[in-house]
Amino acid sequence: MKAVQLVAYGKPLEIREVPTPEPVGENVLVRIGGAGLCHSDLHIMEGKIPILPYLPFTLGHENAGYVEKVGPNVKGFNVGDKVAVYGGWSEKVDRFVLKGEENLSDVTKWVGIGKPGGYAEYLLVPSYRYLLPLGNLDPVEAAPLTDAGLTPYRAIKKLLPHLYPDSTVVIIGAGGLGQFGVRYAKLLTPEVNVVTVDVNRRKLEIARELGSDYVVDSTEKDPVKEVKELTGGEGAQGVVDFVGSDVTMNQAYAMAGRQGTVVIVGLAGGTLKFSAGTVNEVSVTTSNWGTQLELSEVLALARRGVIKARVERIGFEQVNETFERLAKGEVEGRAVLVPELP
Amino acid sequence: MKAVQLVAYGKPLEIREVPTPEPVGENVLVRIGGAGLCHSDLHIMEGKIPILPYLPFTLGHENAGYVEKVGPNVKGFNVGDKVAVYGGWSEKVDRFVLKGEENLSDVTKWVGIGKPGGYAEYLLVPSYRYLLPLGNLDPVEAAPLTDAGLTPYRAIKKLLPHLYPDSTVVIIGAGGLGQFGVRYAKLLTPEVNVVTVDVNRRKLEIARELGSDYVVDSTEKDPVKEVKELTGGEGAQGVVDFVGSDVTMNQAYAMAGRQGTVVIVGLAGGTLKFSAGTVNEVSVTTSNWGTQLELSEVLALARRGVIKARVERIGFEQVNETFERLAKGEVEGRAVLVPELP
Amino acid sequence: MKAVQLVAYGKPLEIREVPTPEPVGENVLVRIGGAGLCHSDLHIMEGKIPILPYLPFTLGHENAGYVEKVGPNVKGFNVGDKVAVYGGWSEKVDRFVLKGEENLSDVTKWVGIGKPGGYAEYLLVPSYRYLLPLGNLDPVEAAPLTDAGLTPYRAIKKLLPHLYPDSTVVIIGAGGLGQFGVRYAKLLTPEVNVVTVDVNRRKLEIARELGSDYVVDSTEKDPVKEVKELTGGEGAQGVVDFVGSDVTMNQAYAMAGRQGTVVIVGLAGGTLKFSAGTVNEVSVTTSNWGTQLELSEVLALARRGVIKARVERIGFEQVNETFERLAKGEVEGRAVLVPELP
Amino acid sequence: MKAVQLVAYGKPLEIREVPTPEPVGENVLVRIGGAGLCHSDLHIMEGKIPILPYLPFTLGHENAGYVEKVGPNVKGFNVGDKVAVYGGWSEKVDRFVLKGEENLSDVTKWVGIGKPGGYAEYLLVPSYRYLLPLGNLDPVEAAPLTDAGLTPYRAIKKLLPHLYPDSTVVIIGAGGLGQFGVRYAKLLTPEVNVVTVDVNRRKLEIARELGSDYVVDSTEKDPVKEVKELTGGEGAQGVVDFVGSDVTMNQAYAMAGRQGTVVIVGLAGGTLKFSAGTVNEVSVTTSNWGTQLELSEVLALARRGVIKARVERIGFEQVNETFERLAKGEVEGRAVLVPELP
Repeated sequence: MKAVQLVAYGKPLEIREVPTPEPVGENVLVRIGGAGLCHSDLHIMEGKIPILPYLPFTLGHENAGYVEKVGPNVKGFNVGDKVAVYGGWSEKVDRFVLKGEENLSDVTKWVGIGKPGGYAEYLLVPSYRYLLPLGNLDPVEAAPLTDAGLTPYRAIKKLLPHLYPDSTVVIIGAGGLGQFGVRYAKLLTPEVNVVTVDVNRRKLEIARELGSDYVVDSTEKDPVKEVKELTGGEGAQGVVDFVGSDVTMNQAYAMAGRQGTVVIVGLAGGTLKFSAGTVNEVSVTTSNWGTQLELSEVLALARRGVIKARVERIGFEQVNETFERLAKGEVEGRAVLVPELP
Repeated sequence: MKAVQLVAYGKPLEIREVPTPEPVGENVLVRIGGAGLCHSDLHIMEGKIPILPYLPFTLGHENAGYVEKVGPNVKGFNVGDKVAVYGGWSEKVDRFVLKGEENLSDVTKWVGIGKPGGYAEYLLVPSYRYLLPLGNLDPVEAAPLTDAGLTPYRAIKKLLPHLYPDSTVVIIGAGGLGQFGVRYAKLLTPEVNVVTVDVNRRKLEIARELGSDYVVDSTEKDPVKEVKELTGGEGAQGVVDFVGSDVTMNQAYAMAGRQGTVVIVGLAGGTLKFSAGTVNEVSVTTSNWGTQLELSEVLALARRGVIKARVERIGFEQVNETFERLAKGEVEGRAVLVPELP
Repeated sequence: MKAVQLVAYGKPLEIREVPTPEPVGENVLVRIGGAGLCHSDLHIMEGKIPILPYLPFTLGHENAGYVEKVGPNVKGFNVGDKVAVYGGWSEKVDRFVLKGEENLSDVTKWVGIGKPGGYAEYLLVPSYRYLLPLGNLDPVEAAPLTDAGLTPYRAIKKLLPHLYPDSTVVIIGAGGLGQFGVRYAKLLTPEVNVVTVDVNRRKLEIARELGSDYVVDSTEKDPVKEVKELTGGEGAQGVVDFVGSDVTMNQAYAMAGRQGTVVIVGLAGGTLKFSAGTVNEVSVTTSNWGTQLELSEVLALARRGVIKARVERIGFEQVNETFERLAKGEVEGRAVLVPELP
Repeated sequence: MKAVQLVAYGKPLEIREVPTPEPVGENVLVRIGGAGLCHSDLHIMEGKIPILPYLPFTLGHENAGYVEKVGPNVKGFNVGDKVAVYGGWSEKVDRFVLKGEENLSDVTKWVGIGKPGGYAEYLLVPSYRYLLPLGNLDPVEAAPLTDAGLTPYRAIKKLLPHLYPDSTVVIIGAGGLGQFGVRYAKLLTPEVNVVTVDVNRRKLEIARELGSDYVVDSTEKDPVKEVKELTGGEGAQGVVDFVGSDVTMNQAYAMAGRQGTVVIVGLAGGTLKFSAGTVNEVSVTTSNWGTQLELSEVLALARRGVIKARVERIGFEQVNETFERLAKGEVEGRAVLVPELP
């Protein structure tokens, strides 16, 4: 089969012919309908931290498609079924796997990082247990939901126990993930005020269209001061930082009110200076991808038509140039590799 | 291999020679170290509700032993490993499986009910994911922990969010499960008063030895009145009924205080009459076996030496007579089939 | 001042001249802007259970108005302030008061039941701590929120931890409280399916207008069967029964799915038959009025304009005839005594 | 009455004759049985941040004693009753007051900081609602429980939802508060491993006597490395830092395992560097004193005899010298002003 592989760190990907895997036991071979191109792939390809188990290696961790072939122990899935692939694979039987948080277990076996991913014609999924039926969803549009749609979902869910009518949630960074964050804040919470902070006016407009009650252009105004004013001096009950820089993290912390929750999602490498002696009981934490249960809920929202990934379809030949555009911030929404495109 | 099988409902079990299963994919063949004889097997054997998928059928849902042979997809377990078998097997990928509550998923595939169980020399476990390492525990003593030890653990855990120092927990029924219930109430909760109710003086003595602060012989005293008195009229914050008869269920409900939690575990077929118009916000619920995560916690407690199953070891030839004694209430603690006994 | 008082059980109320109370310490004298007429007053007036501490007695537990006079220890409220009165007064310092659930503490001191209520020109509130600022809300429209709006809010909040996108909530009984229930189910929960069950087609229409996704006329269809069908056989994750009869309570229980939560609010005196041996872990509980914190959240929703009580304004002279109409089910929405009406 | 007052920042306290307050409304005049001397008083007296509303001012926020006189609105307390005084007084009706977390509301009205405290013969308590009956406890021994005993209780309670059998809790700093922390970790949690870290061998011995399973002298060993080793590389599920310095806070953060909770209590002014891009979902938060409900639970533990403050009784004349010894770390346990001492 055809696969787009990293042959050497720092080099462009190559389209190569590799053996099509054969499913045994609970394995399922999935024909890729769509595989999302993710910013984190760029970090992997760069190779500053050579995280891959071997080279050449097939990347791609946002996958959906069709059941092509099943191993003898597979239950409940049939050839032709449309499925999303949950990619937080672990081979351990640890506490996190047992409570359904495989995303906190063993990252070294994840799809597209530890095991061959979906930039290929076919993907070998270790068990039918990682598949979720798509129903009426198109695999191409579903693929980005398995990461770009899932990660902000988990982050917003971490806020839920702390929110109440007329409380305030702030989304910092209105890119692909942040835009999902705005939507989830509107859909999942009980009548809260959603504030979006970004440096990009266009993205703030999109945030407003997605339902953000207020937007703050942080090139013009101090978002901490703005949030304090909007909340009568109290601060926000929940803040999700989709950037993760020094600046945004410390803003997120400073704009949180008593018992507020700050969730850092962005990977820009910042450091938040958390002080002893503050008596407001603010919590700071991170959020790491999502669980398969959370993915099932994201898919349910998509089937209800209340969330939607913005998708650009590309073929094998366009993968390298699209990653270049992605690196420059020129991709709107999510680029998805569609193997059946010419 | 040898297996103790039900050949016809209402008949004694038979020792028969059956093919030793061959593990494929994720399957693991476990050599049985111990398989606990459970009261619920008697109900199955009686056959009022012919629940088994076919006959002859091998019962046995409390299993521990040694890894004998592994399928090619098995990870992290090796031949000879001492393991407990979690038996709440489901072949579905539903919400309950995804949140680690496989015990709420598909009962028709459970070990010893839907799939051949552990009253045999070997047990085929569908996936290594159902195994938990035993560490320093003896498989014979571990076997009963997978059900008799696990079920009360989950029931007591349902009370935990509602308890606080000097609050009161009542255990109704101090048989095998209830005795674990008393222990867990002492071990897991923050300095609560544990009251045990039973009709059997000997069992109440055991409850006291296990740490119960008060015991009530309900053949002599009204347990509702006693609990009300012990709590200054308020009632208990948590009640677990390990009997489940009309009498005990309605006592459990009547002795609960404001926002008290009543958990029904016993299967004696009773009905609790829950009234509209009560303003005390008492909750009534059931508890169904336990999760694999909960089993891992039960095993941790056993490894720490703070809980222990009382065990009687029997060989294949004694299974039928032991079930007869079990039906008459003549087995103290748990009878465990040990295949290696002569 | 003028007060509408019960002089004898079973007799009509009388308009009487009584001394205007004088606030001392933390007391606040509130000039009644509106006092809601509630169905539960009818039960009190009937006197089957003579619950009042003495006669003549001023009823009225849904109150809002204006601060008229403050005791010397009052903080933060000034004459003329528009306020809602939380009426779950307790004089105890017990666990429930300390955790802000005064509604679970001492009912014998509640406004309009244990202490004189709001069917009068003025109401003596024991402490400024029971007042909540109204902001832009009209006291007449706010009054019913303190009970008719608050009780369903607490009931729906009990479901929240158990709901998720595409799960199902059933509201049984679409009268005054049930209609708020429908609204809250739409506002507070994450994209769930709301089903309303009633025997009255007009009320079902209102439920639909308020956002109910499905309605079931239980004179025509079996609501248990309908809910099972709508949920693919699973049943509902949450059910609130605003009727509380034998029929509705057992329907509520039967239509709940695995780990579903059934909250009984209605006071029709029914009994729910809860069975041992069910393995679905359904919880059944009651919900009793609401907390002051919950009332503050209800008022926030009203200020945001997303909930609204339907109100009929009446003067002192119309109280008796309005209670008669209320008894016959002829009042649409909530009748509110407005003392300043002629 | 006699009172020990701060007359000027940076000066010793003075014993002065001041008017005995007169209770009105819900006020209660409490005759001080014991008033604990707290390290935080030293900070106030120093006056770097002149936090007091006026001078001269009576400090003292750990108070217990006897009801001396009650205002006309007081309910349920009588002259002579032995009581503990909860001192987190607020005059607001905000969200935190309504949910029983007055410790998060308005610090400017707290006893001994915003309102005259208990270093006096009598204390005016704004409302009987702030009193808790002592039962069989001695007011002198109860006084320190209202802060030194309460603050660690709240901190440990923040860990509880995250702990399970054989999980690990680390207490950093085994001084007065930390010692309570060790006790609570043993009493409230389900069979966890308690590790105590300190620089003082004597304090580590006390921690061991109080039940700490492991102790680490951080002058000799790296506590992060030790905790990692004790937990098989995973790290701790809960860490409470009773020091709050740069060093301890960053150790606390580094020794936390996946989804671990770090609670900073100490006020040594440190800063914790929280990193984006960590995928372990560790939470960092602070804990601020405690609620009155939590104090009621602490008192319940004391009445059960499972916790006990170590107390040194002093009279009015010894207050200044005792504060000097406190500043030098020469007070073992808690010094308590006992006005009736000569």
